[in-house]
Amino acid sequence: MLLEQINRPEDLKRLSMAELEVLAGEIRQFLIEKLSVTGGHLSSNLGVVELTIALHTLFHSPYDKLLFDVGHQAYVHKILTGRKDKFDTLRKYKGLCGFIKRSESEHDVWEAGHSSTSLSAAMGMAMARDLKGEHNKVVAIIGDGAITGGMALEAMNHIGHEKKNIMVILNDNEMSIAPNVGAIHNYLSKIRSDRHYLKAKEEVEHLLKKIPAIGGTLAKTAEKLKDSLKYFVLNGVWFEELGFTYIGPVDGHNLPVLLDTLKQAEKVVGPVLVHVVTTKGKGYTPAEQDSHSWHGPGPYKIESGQVLKSVGPPMYTEVFGSTLMKLAEQDSRIVAVTPAMPGGSGLLKFAKQFPSRMIDVGIAEQHAATLCAGLASEGLKPVFAVYSTFLQRAYDQVVHDICRPKLNVAFAIDRAGFVGPDGETHQGVYDIAFLRSLPNMVLMMPKDEKELQDMMQTALEYDEGPIAYRYPRNSGIGANLDEAPKAIPIGTWETLRDGDYAAVLAVGPMVQVAEEASEQLAKEGIKLRVVNARFIKPLDEMYLRQLANESIPIITMEEGAIQGGFGSAVMEFFAANHFTGLHVNVMGIPDYFVEHGSVKEQREEVGLTAHNLIAEVKKLVPRKRQRA
Amino acid sequence: MLLEQINRPEDLKRLSMAELEVLAGEIRQFLIEKLSVTGGHLSSNLGVVELTIALHTLFHSPYDKLLFDVGHQAYVHKILTGRKDKFDTLRKYKGLCGFIKRSESEHDVWEAGHSSTSLSAAMGMAMARDLKGEHNKVVAIIGDGAITGGMALEAMNHIGHEKKNIMVILNDNEMSIAPNVGAIHNYLSKIRSDRHYLKAKEEVEHLLKKIPAIGGTLAKTAEKLKDSLKYFVLNGVWFEELGFTYIGPVDGHNLPVLLDTLKQAEKVVGPVLVHVVTTKGKGYTPAEQDSHSWHGPGPYKIESGQVLKSVGPPMYTEVFGSTLMKLAEQDSRIVAVTPAMPGGSGLLKFAKQFPSRMIDVGIAEQHAATLCAGLASEGLKPVFAVYSTFLQRAYDQVVHDICRPKLNVAFAIDRAGFVGPDGETHQGVYDIAFLRSLPNMVLMMPKDEKELQDMMQTALEYDEGPIAYRYPRNSGIGANLDEAPKAIPIGTWETLRDGDYAAVLAVGPMVQVAEEASEQLAKEGIKLRVVNARFIKPLDEMYLRQLANESIPIITMEEGAIQGGFGSAVMEFFAANHFTGLHVNVMGIPDYFVEHGSVKEQREEVGLTAHNLIAEVKKLVPRKRQRA
Repeated sequence: MLLEQINRPEDLKRLSMAELEVLAGEIRQFLIEKLSVTGGHLSSNLGVVELTIALHTLFHSPYDKLLFDVGHQAYVHKILTGRKDKFDTLRKYKGLCGFIKRSESEHDVWEAGHSSTSLSAAMGMAMARDLKGEHNKVVAIIGDGAITGGMALEAMNHIGHEKKNIMVILNDNEMSIAPNVGAIHNYLSKIRSDRHYLKAKEEVEHLLKKIPAIGGTLAKTAEKLKDSLKYFVLNGVWFEELGFTYIGPVDGHNLPVLLDTLKQAEKVVGPVLVHVVTTKGKGYTPAEQDSHSWHGPGPYKIESGQVLKSVGPPMYTEVFGSTLMKLAEQDSRIVAVTPAMPGGSGLLKFAKQFPSRMIDVGIAEQHAATLCAGLASEGLKPVFAVYSTFLQRAYDQVVHDICRPKLNVAFAIDRAGFVGPDGETHQGVYDIAFLRSLPNMVLMMPKDEKELQDMMQTALEYDEGPIAYRYPRNSGIGANLDEAPKAIPIGTWETLRDGDYAAVLAVGPMVQVAEEASEQLAKEGIKLRVVNARFIKPLDEMYLRQLANESIPIITMEEGAIQGGFGSAVMEFFAANHFTGLHVNVMGIPDYFVEHGSVKEQREEVGLTAHNLIAEVKKLVPRKRQRA
Repeated sequence: MLLEQINRPEDLKRLSMAELEVLAGEIRQFLIEKLSVTGGHLSSNLGVVELTIALHTLFHSPYDKLLFDVGHQAYVHKILTGRKDKFDTLRKYKGLCGFIKRSESEHDVWEAGHSSTSLSAAMGMAMARDLKGEHNKVVAIIGDGAITGGMALEAMNHIGHEKKNIMVILNDNEMSIAPNVGAIHNYLSKIRSDRHYLKAKEEVEHLLKKIPAIGGTLAKTAEKLKDSLKYFVLNGVWFEELGFTYIGPVDGHNLPVLLDTLKQAEKVVGPVLVHVVTTKGKGYTPAEQDSHSWHGPGPYKIESGQVLKSVGPPMYTEVFGSTLMKLAEQDSRIVAVTPAMPGGSGLLKFAKQFPSRMIDVGIAEQHAATLCAGLASEGLKPVFAVYSTFLQRAYDQVVHDICRPKLNVAFAIDRAGFVGPDGETHQGVYDIAFLRSLPNMVLMMPKDEKELQDMMQTALEYDEGPIAYRYPRNSGIGANLDEAPKAIPIGTWETLRDGDYAAVLAVGPMVQVAEEASEQLAKEGIKLRVVNARFIKPLDEMYLRQLANESIPIITMEEGAIQGGFGSAVMEFFAANHFTGLHVNVMGIPDYFVEHGSVKEQREEVGLTAHNLIAEVKKLVPRKRQRA
């Protein structure tokens, strides 16, 4: 095995072209085998095997900076930079991160998880290089989906203007996670597929010679036109107008051609964009044929290409998708909006049944949110289906375009709370803090998948501004689904278990945790009241007043950042209403970024468990006695 | 006066072309006179007089939707839609809003304040129209600065793909507030200025005829090339590739040509972009010559063009700018980054002295933030100078690209707190909530302009991650400036006035308010302790423990949203450390959007005054007695 000899990028530089090609095959095999056990981003990594080999053969990492946009396509980079032995721990607790991670390797110079950040970072690194008088290369590798994200376009506008030496590798696989949409995508397709474009280049030179010499006033125009022609038949005029030298398209699986092209690009002064065409899932037929399902599969059987599915209750995502279809059948005002996540958000069936009411805007969360505002301002009922972590991209639009003018936009916030193996870049743990501080926002979280349905009905009937329901990434608890969801009165909680020893105000999946704790405590004669705090905003003020009057110790429990979270909201209410002397204990996620692992491990790490809740309740005893 | 007869858009449709031109002159005069008293966005409105007249003459508002991006250039629209009598109250408390406002008029279909939102909203309205089977026009008017904002580019990518009937008026005045930067800007300049582009169109037709008929295999290529040529010499190929029909450039001050062009554009099927060239400040020489200073001047003398300046201590902004220059002289790692606000952020002199260390990225807050991350990752000390309200645009980048990898980016957050006449879209009142919930962030606010200097030094010396100082829009309090700023130990507060009756933990300008209250209370024998809570994060935990042990009633006071704000941070600390039974009173901005007016009026409206603090302190008496 050649792969066994590769422990750092320099090892590549000793290999012949033939050996590099053999190595590519070995890496593919390695990925297919390792990921069949751990799961992970298979397709995108199979697509960049040759590209990553070429980059590390040609450049000198970490002196030269390689920035992988998003970073889930950097497994090959990890393999080539001394981490191949850690792939058994990929995306596991304390194991190899599924994305680029600066603390893992000196070769990981830029880390991400969200898309479209690499061009801005590359520009920063290039400007720093020039200010410091250094000469390293800066190379950003970005997908055709990510490059249409607003911040990447902002960066291109800036890079093209400043003319810094930056190389952008456009990894064009015609996909982000779902098939790409958008005019830029169409443009790339045209470049890729129009044979005329490819042929014309040579023919034009020949043709230009046939144009006779023209005298008089037209002569200058003719000259300029000849230049223009040459320029035009070069591909990528759109990028050229942005100030980039465009090179491509080039076959991303042909190593010799790739290396030649990159060498050519290296000589360009100023920003250069190399358009590399790759195939997602390259070399593994099941993944090539269905790169959507194979974007980030769990473990699978290599021979059959069968992804092993866990048996259990439906995912919250699925319940959201099927319920939205039912609601949309009854109410034609409903429109679903997704930023490039039709599958991840459970909307594939919806898209089939209501194609004109399904809007996939591509990786463009900001545009998606304000598009919803526009739809709502004309009387429709847009549902913005978005992961909690990606909603961060649209924060200003939520404040300025939706909450401020009080428009009827519903937010279906998926992956709220811990997300498991995607880790710290994807944790959905700030939305409570950043949404509840905004006027006019209603924010809910269901205790189970049936209540999610009721909340969707609540959102549909609510006509006084924005309303959001956040739900976890994982499976529901197996609650019976509702044929006819019922709206929940805004700002009302419910008591699930009675008790006078203490009251836990639990949000979302913490309700189940609290019930478990309450059940165990009951065996010891301690009655813990469990309240389903299904509205994070507005709070159930009647309920809180009652609790204050009872002077019962209160524990709040949420899978979100403590800072500014639900617990703080409860304390704010008590402060505003001059209820002093209450005991409030806030359980949530402490003030640091929680890394990848399973959701269970993440909850254990921060103490969001029944075990820990029981301990907190028991600690109350002495204080209670003190007061008495 | 023709203007007297214009009370609604229909009134325009009765006027002849000559009368419309006279009206344009009258409106200019009206604006120059009214704004000389009230102040306001003069230049941008003088630039769109003919354009706005043309739009309202041709289209049928509000059936047809006119969306003004940002909305500060909609004064002419307000004049033409029945609000000319309210201009004496422009941007004043309870008066006419300086931006578009849905509650003001049925003709205000889209409201904003932040830039680059109109295309997304227009797309939402167009999709709603088509779903409802209606036929109104949707027209977005957007500047050449705003169109390069990421979300506008995201919107164009989507609009061009979906081919909806939307008209985009690109109001190209070569300026946002500062001169524009970026490759797209360069591209527009080329279109505007390259005479060849303008002439070539006619000549090409003539030239093409001269190319002889070509047989054989080249025939088809030749045909295609002819098409390509025609296409290329049309201006705006960059927009055409995005799926727009491009029309222009057209002189935005020539009413007959404008009307003709808009009529032509109206007939286009699918998205059309009309490139209108206007002059900021048109018709008022002082504003034409210096559109930067005249973007949003205060009152001025019409004849001399002299803007009346209030006398008083320097603005915080100025102190920031001059101090940064001093620090940059001593430390070559400092780089300043601004999203199109070099003047507003007090960086014009810095730009002159350190041109290579001054980075203006245009309207691109997301890119700016991650660019800072890139600079910091290479050892520089970027200072991101940004208004609080615009930092909202970069929230995800702050979380994901700066706080998470703990990079040394300093945030100079200007216009924090109430901003006065710009009103609810520009209030800087959420940054405490959205920043302090992020791990690794340090957040400060100075009590005066001298302390701002010390905080800048603190930020420079701090090497453990992101650090932010927020400061108000207005003048400082006249504190003596420091020749050699000194770093403040992280997480330390200071007692400014002693007292044992209650302690007020005041943030930023609230310190002065608290001192005033304390002084007045002292006359009545009530000793109010005043604490300068200069660190919002981390809190001064030692200080808080001491307060808890004293059991002194605590009042927190901040010019920020109560929800998730500084007061909540204090309560979170007490909860986490099991200090129960404390009296904490939180004063801040309640849960609604505060409209335009003076900062003083805004503070009075929400009760952030010495008067109100005194009342709160006095309310403490009975409670204190109860406890005793």
